[in-house]
Amino acid sequence: MSPPTTASAIVSSSSSSSYFTLFPLTSTSPKSKPTTKLSFNFSKTQTRNLTLKTITIRSAVSIEKEIPETERPNTFLRESDDHDSPSSSSSSSSTVRSRFEKMIRKAQDSVCKAIEGADGGAKFKEDVWSRPGGGGGISRVLQDGAVWEKAGVNVSVVYGVMPPEAYRAATASAEVKPGPVPFFAAGISSVLHPKNPFAPTLHFNYRYFETDAPKDAPGAPRQWWFGGGTDLTPAYIFEEDVKHFHSVQKSACDKFDPTFYPRFKKWCDDYFYIKHRGERRGLGGIFFDDLNDYDQEMLLSFATECANSVVPAYIPIIEKRKDTPFTDQHKAWQQLRRGRYVEFNLVYDRGTTFGLKTGGRIESILVSLPLTARWEYDHKPENGTEEWKLLDACINPKEWI
Amino acid sequence: MSPPTTASAIVSSSSSSSYFTLFPLTSTSPKSKPTTKLSFNFSKTQTRNLTLKTITIRSAVSIEKEIPETERPNTFLRESDDHDSPSSSSSSSSTVRSRFEKMIRKAQDSVCKAIEGADGGAKFKEDVWSRPGGGGGISRVLQDGAVWEKAGVNVSVVYGVMPPEAYRAATASAEVKPGPVPFFAAGISSVLHPKNPFAPTLHFNYRYFETDAPKDAPGAPRQWWFGGGTDLTPAYIFEEDVKHFHSVQKSACDKFDPTFYPRFKKWCDDYFYIKHRGERRGLGGIFFDDLNDYDQEMLLSFATECANSVVPAYIPIIEKRKDTPFTDQHKAWQQLRRGRYVEFNLVYDRGTTFGLKTGGRIESILVSLPLTARWEYDHKPENGTEEWKLLDACINPKEWI
Repeated sequence: MSPPTTASAIVSSSSSSSYFTLFPLTSTSPKSKPTTKLSFNFSKTQTRNLTLKTITIRSAVSIEKEIPETERPNTFLRESDDHDSPSSSSSSSSTVRSRFEKMIRKAQDSVCKAIEGADGGAKFKEDVWSRPGGGGGISRVLQDGAVWEKAGVNVSVVYGVMPPEAYRAATASAEVKPGPVPFFAAGISSVLHPKNPFAPTLHFNYRYFETDAPKDAPGAPRQWWFGGGTDLTPAYIFEEDVKHFHSVQKSACDKFDPTFYPRFKKWCDDYFYIKHRGERRGLGGIFFDDLNDYDQEMLLSFATECANSVVPAYIPIIEKRKDTPFTDQHKAWQQLRRGRYVEFNLVYDRGTTFGLKTGGRIESILVSLPLTARWEYDHKPENGTEEWKLLDACINPKEWI
Repeated sequence: MSPPTTASAIVSSSSSSSYFTLFPLTSTSPKSKPTTKLSFNFSKTQTRNLTLKTITIRSAVSIEKEIPETERPNTFLRESDDHDSPSSSSSSSSTVRSRFEKMIRKAQDSVCKAIEGADGGAKFKEDVWSRPGGGGGISRVLQDGAVWEKAGVNVSVVYGVMPPEAYRAATASAEVKPGPVPFFAAGISSVLHPKNPFAPTLHFNYRYFETDAPKDAPGAPRQWWFGGGTDLTPAYIFEEDVKHFHSVQKSACDKFDPTFYPRFKKWCDDYFYIKHRGERRGLGGIFFDDLNDYDQEMLLSFATECANSVVPAYIPIIEKRKDTPFTDQHKAWQQLRRGRYVEFNLVYDRGTTFGLKTGGRIESILVSLPLTARWEYDHKPENGTEEWKLLDACINPKEWI
């Protein structure tokens, strides 16, 4: 297997969409090729005194292989991150890193508990893993339950090193020539695929990213941002369900900023666009990325509120639909929509594609795929049918509330 | 929808693996984003007086939308391509373009006839399409037959324009400043997924590529190359089947060059490697790309021989396995291997990914996906089982003959 090394990379060009994806950085696949393209995003907006750029990095990535653990540790943070540091902007006694990790682990517990409760018997299987240099994660999967065919809820904490060229480009400072820039990333990611074709799939994902000051330039600025979202992918539309789901998202947003819901709803519609189909994966929700142009404490509270909204947004819909009678035709349509889910995740989803190409923990990444999926040649639902209505709403996103 | 335009692009950097992929260039998806990365390969080897390089092109691709046709035309070639030209190296009275098109259409007919015969009732559904500026294709799909759950056999002919920068880089000539370089590409592509878990999936694909002289530099050299391969993807190993399959490939190769089989078998094992899994999609076969360092007539005959070997390599295996009794466990394992097929095709296969990103005819591209597939979390076959043996052979490719 690969020995523990850190990422090293060369900035090659500026391009396309902007992001940093977190979950993929969770392991080393033994035979992964040494050269991979990465895209790091430092922000689409201005931050403090910095004008940041989106850059593409060609990187020789090889991160430490994960080690299975028998018990959940209290924290995946390095010891130094557990306490407040003088440079932290946090007003609390513990760092944002530490509080974010606590938040996502609590959210994982409460979502899993709600899922097990609604499923009525099946239990999540848990895999805990860590890396020698710090970081790790907890993957939980419930498979072939009474209600869900596959439900995955993962948290992970990653320490990595960003190449100096990336940091230089990000800070637009030709004078500073820092060494490699350490970064920290933590997040929760989940996909829940129910069995009943009238019960919708849910995805959510909340993450926090931070860079340290470069080792050779201790005074250089640190960076941080938040990302995430929650979105609904039904095979059939029940308008009251979709309205309920979007209302909960809007309420969470409105507690912080009236512009959040319309903006993040639009970002979500844009993000889940399957280009080659000209349609979206589902009926949207909220999605944000690179969010750092608000108070850091406010954004931590906002991400927390979003994560806490998952259960009230989703479980009532499942309770209503999990036992609805259905035919083979309903099931076949659900399976075709699952095929779209697979297409989106394997072709476009940044987390998945980045993860597969950089040697993330495969089973944690691909737990987002449904248990089963189907592709029929040139399938087109007849105009006016329920199947057509769903497709139409995926092609032409609506304002649900 | 998009108006007919030609491709235009800027060469951005030199990188990674080398290829030109053909089938994707078969339509325009209405909402595809204007900027896409393409990789054109001009050769890994030296050709005549040219040292060629692999280059990456960032391109604004928008190719003409395909038009459904009610009848198969005699040819998809432009009229001028049907006759011999003085600059052609062909010794025959018709061009290599023309003879290659005839060959792949004949191969399509004979493979479809053999499949229908072995299936015993189901018929291929045919879609014919063309483009206003020349080119087109015939897609044939048999779905939910007695023996095959999905069988697709497509031919296509594509005319495109390569940006001048690409041609300049390819010819390593800074002095010539040609205009856009027209290219021609034709190919047959097929994936055959049987129902019975003991009957293997087959894929084959043969293609021919040519560039014209640049319009502003009529004396500049033309380029051509051949690519393709045939490979077998079973869920269970019957050694006699795999030996038979590889023997037929070797016989076809040996008629032309004793180095072909070992070389193209290795290329095949390398090509179908699923990086993130550390395993191959199946048990290989032969694969070649960028082949132009042999006599053109010889390579045309070789590609013809390979295409003609599909039926004798595959149909006898199907006849033997199509009615073998199986359990739900056998079926579930086949479905998990189908999941790997989907992963390979959507994440790594150059034809599929290039096609999806450049606006190819979606249904023709994705006909390669199985009717159904399955993903279980962290599934590992027990050591020594038949499932384990298959996986082991995908991880450690063998010499079968």
